[in-house]
Amino acid sequence: MSHNTFGHLFRVTTFGESHGPAIGCVVDGCPPLLELKEEDIQLFLDQRRPGTSRFTTQRQESDRVKILSGVFQDEKTGRQVTTGTPIALLIENEDQRSKDYDSIKDKYRPGHADFTYDLKYGIRDYRGGGRSSARETATRVAAGAIARKIIDKVRVRGALVQLGPHKINRNNWDWDEVGKNPFFCPDAKAAALFEAYLDEIRKAGSSIGAVIEIVAENAPAGWGAPIYGKLDSELASALMSINAVKGVEIGEGFAAAELSGEANADEMRFGNDGAPLFLSNHAGGILGGISTGQPIVARFAVKPTSSILQPRLTIDRTGAETEIVTKGRHDPCVGIRAVPVGEAMVACVLADQFLRHRGQVRDGAKWPVAR
Amino acid sequence: MSHNTFGHLFRVTTFGESHGPAIGCVVDGCPPLLELKEEDIQLFLDQRRPGTSRFTTQRQESDRVKILSGVFQDEKTGRQVTTGTPIALLIENEDQRSKDYDSIKDKYRPGHADFTYDLKYGIRDYRGGGRSSARETATRVAAGAIARKIIDKVRVRGALVQLGPHKINRNNWDWDEVGKNPFFCPDAKAAALFEAYLDEIRKAGSSIGAVIEIVAENAPAGWGAPIYGKLDSELASALMSINAVKGVEIGEGFAAAELSGEANADEMRFGNDGAPLFLSNHAGGILGGISTGQPIVARFAVKPTSSILQPRLTIDRTGAETEIVTKGRHDPCVGIRAVPVGEAMVACVLADQFLRHRGQVRDGAKWPVAR
Amino acid sequence: MSHNTFGHLFRVTTFGESHGPAIGCVVDGCPPLLELKEEDIQLFLDQRRPGTSRFTTQRQESDRVKILSGVFQDEKTGRQVTTGTPIALLIENEDQRSKDYDSIKDKYRPGHADFTYDLKYGIRDYRGGGRSSARETATRVAAGAIARKIIDKVRVRGALVQLGPHKINRNNWDWDEVGKNPFFCPDAKAAALFEAYLDEIRKAGSSIGAVIEIVAENAPAGWGAPIYGKLDSELASALMSINAVKGVEIGEGFAAAELSGEANADEMRFGNDGAPLFLSNHAGGILGGISTGQPIVARFAVKPTSSILQPRLTIDRTGAETEIVTKGRHDPCVGIRAVPVGEAMVACVLADQFLRHRGQVRDGAKWPVAR
Amino acid sequence: MSHNTFGHLFRVTTFGESHGPAIGCVVDGCPPLLELKEEDIQLFLDQRRPGTSRFTTQRQESDRVKILSGVFQDEKTGRQVTTGTPIALLIENEDQRSKDYDSIKDKYRPGHADFTYDLKYGIRDYRGGGRSSARETATRVAAGAIARKIIDKVRVRGALVQLGPHKINRNNWDWDEVGKNPFFCPDAKAAALFEAYLDEIRKAGSSIGAVIEIVAENAPAGWGAPIYGKLDSELASALMSINAVKGVEIGEGFAAAELSGEANADEMRFGNDGAPLFLSNHAGGILGGISTGQPIVARFAVKPTSSILQPRLTIDRTGAETEIVTKGRHDPCVGIRAVPVGEAMVACVLADQFLRHRGQVRDGAKWPVAR
Repeated sequence: MSHNTFGHLFRVTTFGESHGPAIGCVVDGCPPLLELKEEDIQLFLDQRRPGTSRFTTQRQESDRVKILSGVFQDEKTGRQVTTGTPIALLIENEDQRSKDYDSIKDKYRPGHADFTYDLKYGIRDYRGGGRSSARETATRVAAGAIARKIIDKVRVRGALVQLGPHKINRNNWDWDEVGKNPFFCPDAKAAALFEAYLDEIRKAGSSIGAVIEIVAENAPAGWGAPIYGKLDSELASALMSINAVKGVEIGEGFAAAELSGEANADEMRFGNDGAPLFLSNHAGGILGGISTGQPIVARFAVKPTSSILQPRLTIDRTGAETEIVTKGRHDPCVGIRAVPVGEAMVACVLADQFLRHRGQVRDGAKWPVAR
Repeated sequence: MSHNTFGHLFRVTTFGESHGPAIGCVVDGCPPLLELKEEDIQLFLDQRRPGTSRFTTQRQESDRVKILSGVFQDEKTGRQVTTGTPIALLIENEDQRSKDYDSIKDKYRPGHADFTYDLKYGIRDYRGGGRSSARETATRVAAGAIARKIIDKVRVRGALVQLGPHKINRNNWDWDEVGKNPFFCPDAKAAALFEAYLDEIRKAGSSIGAVIEIVAENAPAGWGAPIYGKLDSELASALMSINAVKGVEIGEGFAAAELSGEANADEMRFGNDGAPLFLSNHAGGILGGISTGQPIVARFAVKPTSSILQPRLTIDRTGAETEIVTKGRHDPCVGIRAVPVGEAMVACVLADQFLRHRGQVRDGAKWPVAR
Repeated sequence: MSHNTFGHLFRVTTFGESHGPAIGCVVDGCPPLLELKEEDIQLFLDQRRPGTSRFTTQRQESDRVKILSGVFQDEKTGRQVTTGTPIALLIENEDQRSKDYDSIKDKYRPGHADFTYDLKYGIRDYRGGGRSSARETATRVAAGAIARKIIDKVRVRGALVQLGPHKINRNNWDWDEVGKNPFFCPDAKAAALFEAYLDEIRKAGSSIGAVIEIVAENAPAGWGAPIYGKLDSELASALMSINAVKGVEIGEGFAAAELSGEANADEMRFGNDGAPLFLSNHAGGILGGISTGQPIVARFAVKPTSSILQPRLTIDRTGAETEIVTKGRHDPCVGIRAVPVGEAMVACVLADQFLRHRGQVRDGAKWPVAR
Repeated sequence: MSHNTFGHLFRVTTFGESHGPAIGCVVDGCPPLLELKEEDIQLFLDQRRPGTSRFTTQRQESDRVKILSGVFQDEKTGRQVTTGTPIALLIENEDQRSKDYDSIKDKYRPGHADFTYDLKYGIRDYRGGGRSSARETATRVAAGAIARKIIDKVRVRGALVQLGPHKINRNNWDWDEVGKNPFFCPDAKAAALFEAYLDEIRKAGSSIGAVIEIVAENAPAGWGAPIYGKLDSELASALMSINAVKGVEIGEGFAAAELSGEANADEMRFGNDGAPLFLSNHAGGILGGISTGQPIVARFAVKPTSSILQPRLTIDRTGAETEIVTKGRHDPCVGIRAVPVGEAMVACVLADQFLRHRGQVRDGAKWPVAR
C-alpha cells in the first residue's frame, strides 16, 4: 500500500524530487555480511548518469551516492559490510536550473504527470517534474546495485533492442557491444543506424520511443509462486512502474498470440549433465509463474520523451486553453537510460525471490523429483 | 506476500484445485450495504463457464456459486446486502474426470506448470492441473462481480481483438457484437473469420493464442498513485497473473516505441461542459500512474493452450525422456474465456482504487485546480 | 490491510458469522509435504469446543472441520500431505438458536461490538454477535493446528493462571494438570478453588475475567527482527486480536516497571553443553525483538464475558434509552476457552517466523559468533 | 514484512544507527496541502531530546531535523505545505563518543539486544547499541509530528503514571503538570516523590522501570476494524515495538481480569446533545476493535534501563564467561523519554486509521443508525 516502496522481503522505499535538496532510498531486508562500499553502487549509477553523450539530457549531475546507515566494518576482514539493518542512500541534487520551469508551472505538458498530479493533490512541485521526474530512477539503480550483491550468481543484463521503428538483428546480438555505444545496443550495426536516426530526431526537437530487453541468467528453478505471486506478475509490476513504460512482455510476449500450441511448446530433454534441458525458451524462463531455470527474458516498451520542442495544444491550471513548447535539457529517447533502470528492477525482483524462497523452495530442488 | 491473495483494500484470497472438492474465494474489504445475491455473481460466472460452445472445453460444470458469509437481510428493504465483513464464495467441482490425467501424472506437459510445481514443491495435484488450472479463474470472475458493485459507475468491458494472426478491424468495433458470438469479438466480420479459423485449429488438435482488450469507462481522474503504486503497474500485475498471459500493454503499448513525441502527445482542450478534454488517448487513460478521466485501456496477450493432441518431447519425474500427447477436454484457445477474467481483474483493481482513494484524492478534484 | 487476515508468510484469512451457514479459513504459505488429516486439526478444535463442561456455553457444536483444498496423497507413503497451495478449512454451523437474539437485535449490549459495528457499517448480523462472535476463534484454532505442523520442534502450551482475583501458585505449576480440569489450570489446588468460585459467578448470572499464559519452548535464537518486526510486537498484535483481550505482557510484563536494572538483568553463563545459558528469563525469551533461545513467555488478560443476566442500562439503534439482560447460552468466563486460542495465535506467529527466517537468520547461528 | 516500516496507509520507514552519520525516516502517505515546517517537527523532538535534565542521558544532541522532500511552497499562501509525495526527514548524529563502547564491543550486555543481534546477523554495530539504540525513537517522534497534522482534531497526550513502585494518585491528575516536571508526570505531588526516588537510583548506578499512559481524545467512533485489524491490536503492536516495552494495556487492561461482567460494562445513555453517552470507559474507547468515540486509553510498561553501573555476569562473542559494567551516558529510567515516543506511536496509528477509514466508515456515522 506504500506507493513509494517496492518489494516484499527485499524492500526499497524511495524519496525525493528532481529539484529538491536530495533524492534517496532506504533498502530494507538486505542480508548481513555482504561487502558494500559506495563505489559498488556508484558503478551502476554512472551508467544511468545524465550528460554522458549527446543522446541524453545535458543536466550535469555527478550523482554521488552516500551510504548513511546499515554498514559496519567487519572485524575480521576490515572491509565494510552490511549489517542486516536498513541501508539508507542519499544523492544530493546539484545542477538545478529550476528557472527553466517557470514557464510551465501552470501549464500541463501533454504526456507528463502534470495534470494528474495536480488533480490528485491540488499541488505539485513543477520543477523538473518534481517527484514524477525520471530522476527518481537513479535511486532504483542504486538499490539494484545492492540487489545484485544478494543474487551474485545471477547475471542480469539489459539491452536496447528497438529504437523507434528500427529493431536490432538478433543474429548480431553481442553483449560486449552493449558497453561500446551510447545506446546499450547489442548489435553494432544497429547502433550505427540508431546514432544517425536519433541525431535527426534530436535536431528536430522531437523524441522517439524504444524497446528494452532484460535477460537474467542462472536464476534457479523454483523462484516465483502460483497465482498472484507469479514471477511474471512481479516483473510486470516492477517494469511497468518505470517512468514512460507502456508495455511489458515475458518470453514470446505478444508474439505468442500468433503461435500454435506446437510451436510455442518448449520441449524437454536431458542435457549432458543429466539436468532437465529445454529445447527452446518461448516461455521466457517462467512456467505457471515459477522460474524454470532457463534465462528469464522480459521486454518493456518506453514511450517517446514527452518533453519536446514541437508546440502542442494544452490547458493550464487556471482553466485556460494554451500552447506549450517544452524547453530545457531532455533526452531525445528516455528509453536509453531506462536500460540500467530495467536491469535494476529485475535485480530487485530477483533479490526478493532469493530471500523469500530460501525458506519455501524444496531444499536443493532434487532431481528427479520422484523420491 | 500472500501468493493466493490480490488487492490491497479490496482483497481477494482464492483457493481450490481443479479436481478437489471445491474452489472458492474470500472477498475482504467490501463496503457494507451493497445489494448482493448469488444471482448477481452467477451472471458473470455463466459468461466464463465451460461447455457453452464448441470452442471451449466440454467439461460440464454448472459453476453454481454459494455465498457463505458477509451478507445479511437489510431491515428496511428486506433485500440481502453486504455487511462489511468478509464474503466467502464457494463453487463445488462436479465433472471431475480425474482418470483422464493418469497418463500424465508423471510427465511434464510442455507449457504447463507441471515441471515447475514439481521442482518447487516436490508434489503436485496433477488432476487437471490442480491449483495451476484455469479453473481458478472462476473465483476471480466471482470476485469481479462484487468489485463491479463497488464501482457501479464505472463500466468495465472486454473484447477479443486478435485470434492467432487475425486482428479485428477497429473501425468495425461494436460492443453489442461481443455478446453475439462465442469469441467476445466486437467485430462481426472478424468473428466469422475467427470461427472458420478456430474450427480448423480445433480439428487439427492444435491451439492458438489471442489478444484481449479491456476498457474501463467513467473512472474518475486521480485513481492510482505515483512511483510504485502506479495504476498501470497494478493493472500489469493483475493481468499478468492470469494463466497463460505473456504480455500486457496500456494505451499505445509497444506501438509507443515507434511514435514520436508529437504523435504520442495527448493534446488538451476544454469540452463543451467546461471540463478538461483530451484530443486523443495514446496514454490509455493513465499519466504518471494516475488516471486522467479518459477510458482506461489495457490489452493482454494469451499464449496458445498448452494441452494439444500433437505429440511433444518431454521428460518425466523419474528422470526419463518421453513423449506426450495431452488428451482430455481443452479449449483450443484459452484466450476466449480469458475475456471475462480480464474484465474481472480490472474491476477488482479499480474497486481497490475506489476504496483507497476516497481518503486520499482531493475531494471533488475541483477544477480548475488554481484555488 | 486485510482486516480478516493475519500473518505474513504464513497467512490465515478467516470468514463467517456465528449464525451463518459456515465459518472457515484459508491458510496460505504452508510448506508442502507435511502430513495433514482432518483429525490433526479436529484434535485442537475439540479443546476449544463449546459445551464440554458447565463452565462453557451450552451451545452444541460438533465443530467438524473439512479440508477443501491444499492436500494430496503422497505417492510414496500413501498419506495425505500438504502441497504448498492454500488450505481451505470449513466448519459448518449447526446449533443456531437465532431466535434467542431477537430481543437484542436493536439494543446495544454493553461491552459487545454491537454499537461500534452498527455505527461503522450501518448494519450488523446481530445473531450471536455475527462476525464479532468468539465463534470466529474456532478457525484460529484450526489454523494453529497447521502452524504446529510447521514448527514441530517447538512446544506451544497455554494455561489459565488467574481467574478473577484468584491467581495460581506458580510453585504448584504442573503442565500435566492442565488437561485434567475444565480450566486449563496448571495448579490442581487452584483449579479446585476456581471451580467453587466460578460456580458462584455462574449461578449469579454474572461473569469474570482471567489471565492466560502461553509458553513456547525450543524456539531457536534469532526469530523476530529489529524495530517494527519485533517478535514481541507480533505476539502483542496477535494476542490483542483475540476477542475480549485487554492486555498483553512479555516476560516480566508490567512487573518490570517495578524492577531495578540489576534485578531485571538476565545474566549469562555457559551451560554444560557449551551453549549460552541465561540465569533467568525476565525478558520472556525476547531481547531487542529477537528470540534468545529461552522459552518465549506471553500473558494476556481477558475481560469478563459481556453477556450477563444482570440488567444493564443501554440505548438502542432507534435512539431510545433502554435496559438489557443478555439471555442465551454464555460462558461465565470466556477466558477459559481463550487458552487454546492463545496457543494457536502464538503457534501461527512462530510458524510465520519459521518461514521468514529460514532465509534471513544466519545459517546455524554458529557459536561463538567471532569467526 | 518490512521490519523497519510501520503503518499501512500512513507509513513510516526509519533508518540509522546510534553512532552512524545520521538517522532519519521516510513518511509515506501523508495527504497534500498540510502546512509543514521543520519547526513543527522540532517542537516534538525537543521534548524527547537527551540532556534536558539530570534524569536523562547527558549525550548532547541538538536533534535538528531537516526535511529533504515532500514539501513545496503553496502558491496561494506562500507557506510550505506537503505535496502528497514521501517526506524524508534527516537528523544528523553529533555527539558520538564511540570510544565509550570499545570495552563492550565483544561483551553482551544483559537486557540489551547485543546477543540476539549477534546471533541473528553475525555482526553488529556495537557503538551505542547501533540500530537497537533508543536513538531510533527520535525518528518516530518526528513522524508523529506529521501524523498529528493529519488528525488535527484528535488530541494525543501522554503521561508517566508509575515510576518503579510509585504510582501517581489519579485524583491529582492535571495535564498541565505534565510539562512542568522532568517526568511528564500529571501529579505534582508524585513528581516530587519521583525526583527524590530517581536521584537515589541514579546515584546508585542503578535504573528503574515505569508505566506510561497515552490518551487520545476526540477520535470519532468507527476507527479500527474487526478481527485482525482491531484498533487495540494495532496499538499493541505499535507500543510493543518501542524499545524496552514489556506490556501493553487498553482501558482496564489486566485489571479487567478481576472484574465482574456487571462492573466492567460501560452502560449507555444519551447526552444532552442527543449523542450516545457511555457512563464509564472500562473499554478504553474500543469495542470489538472499533473506536466508540470515547477517549482511547492505552498504557505500556517500560523495563528498567539495561545499562547500569552494577556489575553483571555475562559472556562474550569469543565464547568466554566474563563480567560487565556499562559505563557511558544513560537514562536512569528510559521510561521518561518514552512518553513522547508513545504519543507519537499512537498519533501514527490514528493517522493511519484516519486515512483508511475515510473510505470505509459510513459517511457521517449517522445517528440513530436505524434508517
